[in-house]
Amino acid sequence: MLIDQLKNYRIFLVSKSPRRAALLTDMDIPFEVMTADVDESYDPMLPPEQVAEYLSQIKLTGIDRSRYPENTIFITCDTIVVTDSEILGKPKDAAEAVRMLQTLSGREHRVITGVTVATPLQQLTSHRVTKVHFDTLSPEEIDYYVKQYKPIDKAGAYGVQEWIGCVGITAIEGSFYNVMGLPTKLLWDMLKKMI
Amino acid sequence: MLIDQLKNYRIFLVSKSPRRAALLTDMDIPFEVMTADVDESYDPMLPPEQVAEYLSQIKLTGIDRSRYPENTIFITCDTIVVTDSEILGKPKDAAEAVRMLQTLSGREHRVITGVTVATPLQQLTSHRVTKVHFDTLSPEEIDYYVKQYKPIDKAGAYGVQEWIGCVGITAIEGSFYNVMGLPTKLLWDMLKKMI
Repeated sequence: MLIDQLKNYRIFLVSKSPRRAALLTDMDIPFEVMTADVDESYDPMLPPEQVAEYLSQIKLTGIDRSRYPENTIFITCDTIVVTDSEILGKPKDAAEAVRMLQTLSGREHRVITGVTVATPLQQLTSHRVTKVHFDTLSPEEIDYYVKQYKPIDKAGAYGVQEWIGCVGITAIEGSFYNVMGLPTKLLWDMLKKMI
Repeated sequence: MLIDQLKNYRIFLVSKSPRRAALLTDMDIPFEVMTADVDESYDPMLPPEQVAEYLSQIKLTGIDRSRYPENTIFITCDTIVVTDSEILGKPKDAAEAVRMLQTLSGREHRVITGVTVATPLQQLTSHRVTKVHFDTLSPEEIDYYVKQYKPIDKAGAYGVQEWIGCVGITAIEGSFYNVMGLPTKLLWDMLKKMI
């Protein structure tokens, strides 16, 4: 079983996201958190799936993997929120968060997470797409959420596991945990391939 | 906003499920927990959607609503797991949990939650269906999950928010919180209609 095999490895989650750390814990995978600051700009001509994969790879470049033993695993991720016309990043303030939620209200969007799993010797990258459908949100509901939950650190200005996810989302199609920032099943399958 | 209107009500969640209580808390709805023991047998000829609705209504019959003021709201739910051929209840022991997970492995099933919202004067019942697709689970994975997590209190012998939900489920279609036992968005809309 993968859980037993992973005991021979030291695993680093390269992410500041407490949600990703919580999900990796739920997978019963022991790990340490590592952060790496890199330039997250990307070619705006790339299709969204490639943007998410590219950004997960870029986060790995901040680490000199050759300095670690072979039984080290690094996990990097990047989650983006995509409407028909644009990629929504993290809002810079409350006003931008309100605008983003107005954009998402009453329609479907896609959440894409790129995942890279790497050892000092190899690396594997993939992604998952989940469709998310928001009901029409009233101005009062958007206002309440932004004031109470301050979703400034979240792509698309919402957390699916927060109030707005409970009362505003009618349906999703795909992996729920992908929307939280870590497609756990994909990561599980990638780790199986890797070791 | 509904949150403000609900301040004029006393709300009871009639359920022993800590997961439902956690979700109602996530909805920012203040409530008290109440339990009512009733006979949960049902007509096996009923279609599954009606079984879930009926069981949510039956749970309400354990309470004498006429003894409460008009601004009291009772919420009852019942969640069932349905394959092509049968309704899976809660497993009676570890061996039955293993058999249920073998049944769910490598295929899609439906999770249906019936919800009833009632005041002393009126009641409203509805349900939500979510499709859940499990990847093929190895005997070791099933064994590990049943030993570590003891899913005896869960319909279908799994918790979507636990290890097996993270590493075994490829995709869902519909409400994630419905699979956890409370279709939060449906409840939100029902409360809006009710008050």
